[in-house]
Amino acid sequence: MNSKKLKDMYQQLVNKLEERSRLGGVMATMHWDQEVIMPKAAAENRSKQMAALAGVLHDKSVDVEIGSLIDKLFEGDLNNFTEIEQCNIYEAKREYELETKIPKQLIQELAELSSSGHQVWAKARQENKFEDFAPTLERLIILKKKWAEFAFPELDPYDANIDIFERGMRMECLTPIFDTLKKELIPLIDAIRKSPINPDIGFLRGNFPIDKQEALGRIISKDIGFDYDRGRMDVSVHPFCGGGHPTDVRITTRYRSESFIDSLFAVIHETGHGLYEQGRMLGFMDLPVSEPLTMAIHESQSLFWERMIGQNFYFCDHYLNLFVETFPESMQGVSLDTLYAAINRCDPSFIRVEADEVTYPLHIILRYEIEKELFDESISVKDLPDIWNYKMEEYLGVSPPSNSEGVLQDVHWSGGAFGYFPSYTLGAMYACQFYSKMLLDINDISKQIKEGNFSCIKKWLNDNIHKAGRLYSPENLLYKVTGDSINPDFFISYLKQKYGQIYSL
Amino acid sequence: MNSKKLKDMYQQLVNKLEERSRLGGVMATMHWDQEVIMPKAAAENRSKQMAALAGVLHDKSVDVEIGSLIDKLFEGDLNNFTEIEQCNIYEAKREYELETKIPKQLIQELAELSSSGHQVWAKARQENKFEDFAPTLERLIILKKKWAEFAFPELDPYDANIDIFERGMRMECLTPIFDTLKKELIPLIDAIRKSPINPDIGFLRGNFPIDKQEALGRIISKDIGFDYDRGRMDVSVHPFCGGGHPTDVRITTRYRSESFIDSLFAVIHETGHGLYEQGRMLGFMDLPVSEPLTMAIHESQSLFWERMIGQNFYFCDHYLNLFVETFPESMQGVSLDTLYAAINRCDPSFIRVEADEVTYPLHIILRYEIEKELFDESISVKDLPDIWNYKMEEYLGVSPPSNSEGVLQDVHWSGGAFGYFPSYTLGAMYACQFYSKMLLDINDISKQIKEGNFSCIKKWLNDNIHKAGRLYSPENLLYKVTGDSINPDFFISYLKQKYGQIYSL
Repeated sequence: MNSKKLKDMYQQLVNKLEERSRLGGVMATMHWDQEVIMPKAAAENRSKQMAALAGVLHDKSVDVEIGSLIDKLFEGDLNNFTEIEQCNIYEAKREYELETKIPKQLIQELAELSSSGHQVWAKARQENKFEDFAPTLERLIILKKKWAEFAFPELDPYDANIDIFERGMRMECLTPIFDTLKKELIPLIDAIRKSPINPDIGFLRGNFPIDKQEALGRIISKDIGFDYDRGRMDVSVHPFCGGGHPTDVRITTRYRSESFIDSLFAVIHETGHGLYEQGRMLGFMDLPVSEPLTMAIHESQSLFWERMIGQNFYFCDHYLNLFVETFPESMQGVSLDTLYAAINRCDPSFIRVEADEVTYPLHIILRYEIEKELFDESISVKDLPDIWNYKMEEYLGVSPPSNSEGVLQDVHWSGGAFGYFPSYTLGAMYACQFYSKMLLDINDISKQIKEGNFSCIKKWLNDNIHKAGRLYSPENLLYKVTGDSINPDFFISYLKQKYGQIYSL
Repeated sequence: MNSKKLKDMYQQLVNKLEERSRLGGVMATMHWDQEVIMPKAAAENRSKQMAALAGVLHDKSVDVEIGSLIDKLFEGDLNNFTEIEQCNIYEAKREYELETKIPKQLIQELAELSSSGHQVWAKARQENKFEDFAPTLERLIILKKKWAEFAFPELDPYDANIDIFERGMRMECLTPIFDTLKKELIPLIDAIRKSPINPDIGFLRGNFPIDKQEALGRIISKDIGFDYDRGRMDVSVHPFCGGGHPTDVRITTRYRSESFIDSLFAVIHETGHGLYEQGRMLGFMDLPVSEPLTMAIHESQSLFWERMIGQNFYFCDHYLNLFVETFPESMQGVSLDTLYAAINRCDPSFIRVEADEVTYPLHIILRYEIEKELFDESISVKDLPDIWNYKMEEYLGVSPPSNSEGVLQDVHWSGGAFGYFPSYTLGAMYACQFYSKMLLDINDISKQIKEGNFSCIKKWLNDNIHKAGRLYSPENLLYKVTGDSINPDFFISYLKQKYGQIYSL
């Protein structure tokens, strides 16, 4: 096939991908609307509207013309295309195959079970009855294994499930990393627990008017680079980053008048996600090449701003005055060291989403080990509560008072999302590894943070990560940016040094 | 064909109509989002997203399976179906034919010209250069005549254009009605102008904090029956009633701190539209039978609440105290008669959207006469400014200082919407005729309004108009509800009596 004809075909593929991306943007906006501003009585109809749109999106994804265009492009010479164009072609192929390789019946059964599973899980959690959720969970695992055989027949079924969230990541890489983390973090947490130092967090509870919290969140998200001409910030039950396009990025938070810090760190976290979206490669915004790479890379961006920057000593230094001005009643007289220690307090607890950066990985490792063993059938669903509680005691020294606060706490499994949890801790490790490299590239970074100059940090992330889109695998991106593969040592020494200092270990 | 098979086919048609309706609801929500909360830099991409969705909607509308189902249903015996089912079938047929009878090339040319026409018009208006808009207008008329030949070959082209907005309405009915209005209103306005009475409106200008205006609008819209569990109120540049479903009705208004009354009446007007949407027939909300009947009937509902109720003496009586409490600085000491006269002040002006209820119909009649004569070629586009100014002087005794404030003031023609304007005054006449009947059905209506009991009024409109959906033609609905055809006498005597009293004529 001549090059002109190949280019024409590529353009046809681009048109189809762009159409699908635009309709996907519509879906994302409808989702945001549902979570943020939809009147409550509209819920029933909204699911029908979104189902109709999901049907259209599915039809567009399995369009046989896409398949035939991809086949013909691969029959030709891909060297006719730029790196960016090749990426679009490969991404289109991956997506098309994932959408078409699974039998329709299995897709439907999974969709129905995920949907009903959510209700079953919510009720079981509310009533503290794991046994009511167990049969659904068993069935979901069976279906997700079947799904894996169709989607990635060459992979172990659990690896296939991980691949959806962190492409290329395998148990053989992950298990030793997580074992290392465990080996280092369990004693660290134990030492922190035994330390006589117990940071005061009393001043973080008080009366913090919500309008002032909102204004503060807007100032800080703007300071670190969120562009409000290309985005919004609103309120939802669970904070998230959504919106339909890099020019329309919508972050949310939630407010409680008795505390400002959780809400503020949710803003910083979601701003990190938002900056990734707003920083996408120009000129290809409706094409796969510019899309965020993986869940873990996305999480690395939110955690970068939340932990590497927001929980940084110099960040506290820069904003302490603003906190005092905004909430004088609670913050007057609070020292920088007190603030820094309070927002970095390490406190083992039952609930993952409330965990601090030291204990969080152990919540994840526990779930990873359980998922892995559920998939290889070395444990069975009925034993999960015991296994869960045993591991909680072993890793964090706490034991959940109920299954609702233990094995039933997370929504993920009820929707069939296995292999998702590792992304959180991979994201934390990536963030730390990126930060280590950034320290070499921006040698006065502490000074920049102390002075509130975040633009060099944002630019570094834009240039190194955001604009790279999907041009590289996560592994290659990490190597390209940091010169190293994923290496838990960065994360471990960061935690040891930081918490060693805070807790005088 | 047996009845079971016919029922199956009907169900297939219903499934397709519901899918299309749901996707239409998505489009409406996207439109609302665009007008109300979208970040400004998202505009360019949003048009692409909406164009992609419009493409999907078009494909669904011209789906040949819909055509074939309709054909087969008509080959069978429609007596197998209830009145509601028959209505859905007829509506589906009308919509399908309108979508499929027009050649694709003409649709595209119209879409492109309407889109570019808007820019051309906006620039011409800004620069007061009618001659820059004239060629576009000429071309739009030619295309809309062509369109009429395909859409309704049996109708006069202008009648065909009217039919899109007010089905069944023809010039032969409209011209004598508008002539009667003209004959009666021109002398009435003249008498008002010569009256020594000149209502004070000074107190309506002042400082009205926007949060108080918003709270007031919410109270009153709620009082008259807007259900905030199934709707919202927000701010947009131009007030409108949108939203994606009867369970998700979104009205908007705009605020200026120097005046509260325009914003409040916009709220009441849009609430009238919103009550129509929220009041739709239960059980068929995604099917054509429950949809609002026509533009003019929709406008009759907004104008009913704005004029028949909101500008009513007893409405002023009920809310004067609340106005005083809300805005004591401006409203303290204002008497009921002063308030009533001020909100009903008649004042001929150049601009249609600012016109009061007495002068408004003449703005419409002027446009109707011009459109009619453009279509039958008894006038030509180049002469429009002169014709416009001459008629303004003749009908309202005022002459616009510029074409921007004259022939270029309205957006409608730039989008090819000819035959739309009559709906406004038809709506006003319908509202008045409905009100006359309501006075007979609810004999203590003034007392109810004075006491702020609007539920009997809302129920009457729900039962008589909203729930009727598309079961009847506008003509038949009017006859069914009021026992009369459209009769301008109701409107004329209402205006003569009301303004005769206010201006002591």
